Amino acid sequence: MTESGDVDLLGALAYAELTAFLRMAEDASQLAPNLTDRAELGSLAVAEYGHFVLLRDRLAELGADPESAMAPFAEAFDSWHELTKPGDWLQALVKAYVGLGIALDFYREAARHLEPSIAPLVEEVLADQERSEFVVDRVRAALADDPTQAGRLALWARRLVGEGLSQAQQVAASRPQLAQLLADADQADIARLFAQLTEEHGKRMAALGI
Amino acid sequence: MTESGDVDLLGALAYAELTAFLRMAEDASQLAPNLTDRAELGSLAVAEYGHFVLLRDRLAELGADPESAMAPFAEAFDSWHELTKPGDWLQALVKAYVGLGIALDFYREAARHLEPSIAPLVEEVLADQERSEFVVDRVRAALADDPTQAGRLALWARRLVGEGLSQAQQVAASRPQLAQLLADADQADIARLFAQLTEEHGKRMAALGI
Repeated sequence: MTESGDVDLLGALAYAELTAFLRMAEDASQLAPNLTDRAELGSLAVAEYGHFVLLRDRLAELGADPESAMAPFAEAFDSWHELTKPGDWLQALVKAYVGLGIALDFYREAARHLEPSIAPLVEEVLADQERSEFVVDRVRAALADDPTQAGRLALWARRLVGEGLSQAQQVAASRPQLAQLLADADQADIARLFAQLTEEHGKRMAALGI
Repeated sequence: MTESGDVDLLGALAYAELTAFLRMAEDASQLAPNLTDRAELGSLAVAEYGHFVLLRDRLAELGADPESAMAPFAEAFDSWHELTKPGDWLQALVKAYVGLGIALDFYREAARHLEPSIAPLVEEVLADQERSEFVVDRVRAALADDPTQAGRLALWARRLVGEGLSQAQQVAASRPQLAQLLADADQADIARLFAQLTEEHGKRMAALGI
């Protein structure tokens, strides 16, 4: 484990949270069908901001400049969001759920690899997981009304993951220390990580009913 | 004082806060020149969401449906935001500062007219006022760099207020109970309210240096 890898991982998560907050707020503003749903997705967005603050403060404690730590990852996350702009409310919900789920998988992975002092932060983030349960309710209700939406949303979820992997590959290529930290430089570990992410993603799709 | 007027006022403030949160997040995402500033405006946006939650809960305590209470004001606030989309970061900062300032003036007015139980809520909102001080720093620094920006920003601030008054007139016409609540049906009170809003706005412009 290298300190530079730690800062990279925290910086990447911090930028992911800051951007998720802002993009989710944008989706809530532009796509929510009513004020209650707008407030619900808004609440999820605010929780992401809370995670960002935890990560930023942790970076500062480590003596790192948060802006410099986040900067190398801005382009990848921004590109992902640009390539996966939701076209409607259901797509926004699926994106929030899939994105949050993958982020939480990464937090768990980070907890395995980073210094133990990150554990409370990861605990706090994971405790927020249940906030996204309203998404499951909304998507399942929409599919009960119109089951033909399932295929479209399943394709959408696959695109979210596909574009994410494409960005992740570019990040891994440009930040070898980060890739090494997550994978312990072991091909078997990389395979395990991908298998686990895929499995967790599959469980989330099943929860949504798509 | 009518209960319907109370619900109207809380509903209008709740929608104003929810929308300010989402629009500020959008501006932070699209216009901030760096990640630190993006996080700063994001933090202000999150504070607005906190106010929204206080108001929504207060409405529910009063037995009102928050969505129904907010709905009559959605068009006016949405129109105002559409008509005052910031074109750059400085405009976004001035909009956040002016909008927050006017909202706080209305909270003070609400505290004068509404049942005493709203007082703690108003206290909590007013305590957040200092969060917007970073805006003053940023705008003054920008004007120190380039004093020619002052005229443009002063015009922008005037437009923000002008479009706001225009929307407020339409709301007052369609919600006489709200207008009556704020003005006690007394022309002198209306004149006083406008004079006070104008005076406070003038102080904020002086603080920004425009």
